[in-house]
Amino acid sequence: MTVIPEPSVPSMRTAIPGPLTTATKSELDIIFDARTAQMVIDYDKSSGNYLVDVDNNTYLDVYAQIASIPVGYNNPTLVKAAQSPAMVSALVNRPAIGNFPSQRWLNLLRDGLMRVAPRGCTQVVTAQSGSEANELAFKAAFMAYRRNQRGDASCFKNSFHGRGFGSLSATRSKPVHKIDIPSFKWPQATFPQLKYPLEEHEQENRHEEKHCLQEIKHIIESWHCPVAGIIVEPIQSEGGDNHASPEFFQYLQAITKAYGICLIVDEVQTGFGGTGKFWGHEHWNLPAPADIVTFSKKAKTAGYFFSDSSLRPDKAYRQFNTWMSDAARVIMSNAVIDEILGENLVEKTAHVGEVLHKRLAILATQYPQFIRNLRGRGLGTYLAFDTPDSSTLLKEMRNLGINIGSCGVSTIRLRPMLIFREEHISPLVEAFEKAFAKLG
Amino acid sequence: MTVIPEPSVPSMRTAIPGPLTTATKSELDIIFDARTAQMVIDYDKSSGNYLVDVDNNTYLDVYAQIASIPVGYNNPTLVKAAQSPAMVSALVNRPAIGNFPSQRWLNLLRDGLMRVAPRGCTQVVTAQSGSEANELAFKAAFMAYRRNQRGDASCFKNSFHGRGFGSLSATRSKPVHKIDIPSFKWPQATFPQLKYPLEEHEQENRHEEKHCLQEIKHIIESWHCPVAGIIVEPIQSEGGDNHASPEFFQYLQAITKAYGICLIVDEVQTGFGGTGKFWGHEHWNLPAPADIVTFSKKAKTAGYFFSDSSLRPDKAYRQFNTWMSDAARVIMSNAVIDEILGENLVEKTAHVGEVLHKRLAILATQYPQFIRNLRGRGLGTYLAFDTPDSSTLLKEMRNLGINIGSCGVSTIRLRPMLIFREEHISPLVEAFEKAFAKLG
Repeated sequence: MTVIPEPSVPSMRTAIPGPLTTATKSELDIIFDARTAQMVIDYDKSSGNYLVDVDNNTYLDVYAQIASIPVGYNNPTLVKAAQSPAMVSALVNRPAIGNFPSQRWLNLLRDGLMRVAPRGCTQVVTAQSGSEANELAFKAAFMAYRRNQRGDASCFKNSFHGRGFGSLSATRSKPVHKIDIPSFKWPQATFPQLKYPLEEHEQENRHEEKHCLQEIKHIIESWHCPVAGIIVEPIQSEGGDNHASPEFFQYLQAITKAYGICLIVDEVQTGFGGTGKFWGHEHWNLPAPADIVTFSKKAKTAGYFFSDSSLRPDKAYRQFNTWMSDAARVIMSNAVIDEILGENLVEKTAHVGEVLHKRLAILATQYPQFIRNLRGRGLGTYLAFDTPDSSTLLKEMRNLGINIGSCGVSTIRLRPMLIFREEHISPLVEAFEKAFAKLG
Repeated sequence: MTVIPEPSVPSMRTAIPGPLTTATKSELDIIFDARTAQMVIDYDKSSGNYLVDVDNNTYLDVYAQIASIPVGYNNPTLVKAAQSPAMVSALVNRPAIGNFPSQRWLNLLRDGLMRVAPRGCTQVVTAQSGSEANELAFKAAFMAYRRNQRGDASCFKNSFHGRGFGSLSATRSKPVHKIDIPSFKWPQATFPQLKYPLEEHEQENRHEEKHCLQEIKHIIESWHCPVAGIIVEPIQSEGGDNHASPEFFQYLQAITKAYGICLIVDEVQTGFGGTGKFWGHEHWNLPAPADIVTFSKKAKTAGYFFSDSSLRPDKAYRQFNTWMSDAARVIMSNAVIDEILGENLVEKTAHVGEVLHKRLAILATQYPQFIRNLRGRGLGTYLAFDTPDSSTLLKEMRNLGINIGSCGVSTIRLRPMLIFREEHISPLVEAFEKAFAKLG
């Protein structure tokens, strides 16, 4: 496979959506619900930070498959891993890993994934998606808390933890996720709603966080059955890119320790470097390790959770299923980790995030009606802002060759890849300027 | 990759477990719960129906990764698919399929999976595991049944439908799956307990099935909230290889039609030819298509459900998640389908199953204390029998170079691959004879 050089700017050949996109979408829709398809992509032509659709339109991609492309389209290190004999074997001979692991499984985990285990985590439990990783984490928390009596798991308002029946029970972001679907009556707590700029609202924000922490204690003490754990995202992503301070999370951990319950950190979206640290919760400076850290997206895989050995069930087969994971996907995770560590992509993301934040902050002073509550400073490229009409802005940006995402009610979230560099900032900022000028 | 010829007989080099297996297992157990690991396999050396462990012991494998290896280890057609440029792209550029499908996704589904869609099914919904396919099926049933009011899903005693919080709620086989884990209070019905040989117990069995059907009607009419669907396995596999007659399933469908609820057929284990028909429920001669058919294992993948378009949600994004599926795994599914259809493996499995059943029936007359309730005649190689101590028998068989599975309380289940041929019967039957002689 030849390496395609990354384009230097977006280029649009057709109106959006182009004729081939529209035709393919309608054909697909006959057998597969294609109403959610925003583009149809020619991945063979896509490269680095740039996506090419079937109509030959080239987009700078700062949404990255909902924060799931770590090191760029057709990354050569990943291509090499995909062509390796170990990969062919993993694809062809997919085993029931729990019963019949391969000769390579030990190395894939020990010399692969465990390289990036969060501090204090000595164990990895593998799964097949972020939802499943969270469901396994809930199971671990329930089993750990009480062998004989059921406890409930607690989550935060506006949180998104997946769409399985358990993970969906802890998801509280949008009604469309939950309507008609039965869910467990697990308690939810209020996640802080901070005011921006942070430096102008210190006292209010501290008060807001304190109030939320008190509510959590109240829930744990008053809920009709024991609470076994709390799950929280470092940045509430689907829910609108909501942040809280390191102190909030430190107190949250202190609460879980005081009540002997599990702190589950859902890093499905924030893990693997996008926040300028390998794990989003490293920003919190927690006195003790998180109990469970779940992950999926950027590992191009499957799903995992990390923990220490205390979360291992007392008996075998309590956390088990046929696949358990997919070694093919773990091979890809390891190639991603190689690339991230080898190229210092976490540090580079921290740096470029600072530069990008500065440019957006300037833009916010120029277009205050379009950029409100700019947030995420110090969190790599995981920047976000509120805007009056996010869906129109997204559409305008796409016409200008920028693929970007929204979340919450009307928030624009940036989720570029870890190979987003300073040279990519100008095309992005210029597109914002054009879009704002048009919409203004 | 060179094709390794299939061995002609099992061969054992060490006592079981061998030293390298034991050492690898203990190293793995430091970071990953390895208590369920029964062997550690060198998949590069494995071929066709034969597994080779890291101690160089060669086993005839009639368990096939819990019924999940369809066409043999290192099958050349699958190796070719794994090495294709489309595979490399799918692995490296894994998209959020719901939003940004590739240029190949339409072909992978329309010209691939849809070739084997069950009768009446025009739609495919993709997932990442059998559990997830069942959870998506439940969601579809709930959404279809009532837009504004919740219904419950019903399942059968001893059923196994997965381990997510929703799919686990419908799983009723072993306590170890469920202890400490909250579940939905969905009703369960009694699955018929047939007596064998069938021809000697016709009237009793008919009565048993009628009784179960009456109970189902009673549950639907008396449950505290509406029942939205019924999920059933064509053969209750984890629960002990329990069968029911085609008439039972015909009446079951008539009940679902009468009450306007969904019949979900869980073919995660029975689909893709092992029963001598491509789908297990084809044996039932249903007057109308099943509403939903879920599948995973032998497609080496991911997970799917098939349905008609009436099960499509009214709005987009109600069945959605980041990955939706994995095109890499769908490419493998398609290679499996190529091989099954091209080599007539379903018909061959139906035939070899007949021959194998005859040999086992003879063995049952010779060792009636070890083979009771032999069942599955006419269902390809999905044969099973009860035996006084299944775990000891499994161990003996493994020492003799046969990898075989159990289920239920004390049932041996055969789950050979679709490439199991008459020449493989003798090593299997001879090992049974030796094991029975030793245990007798």
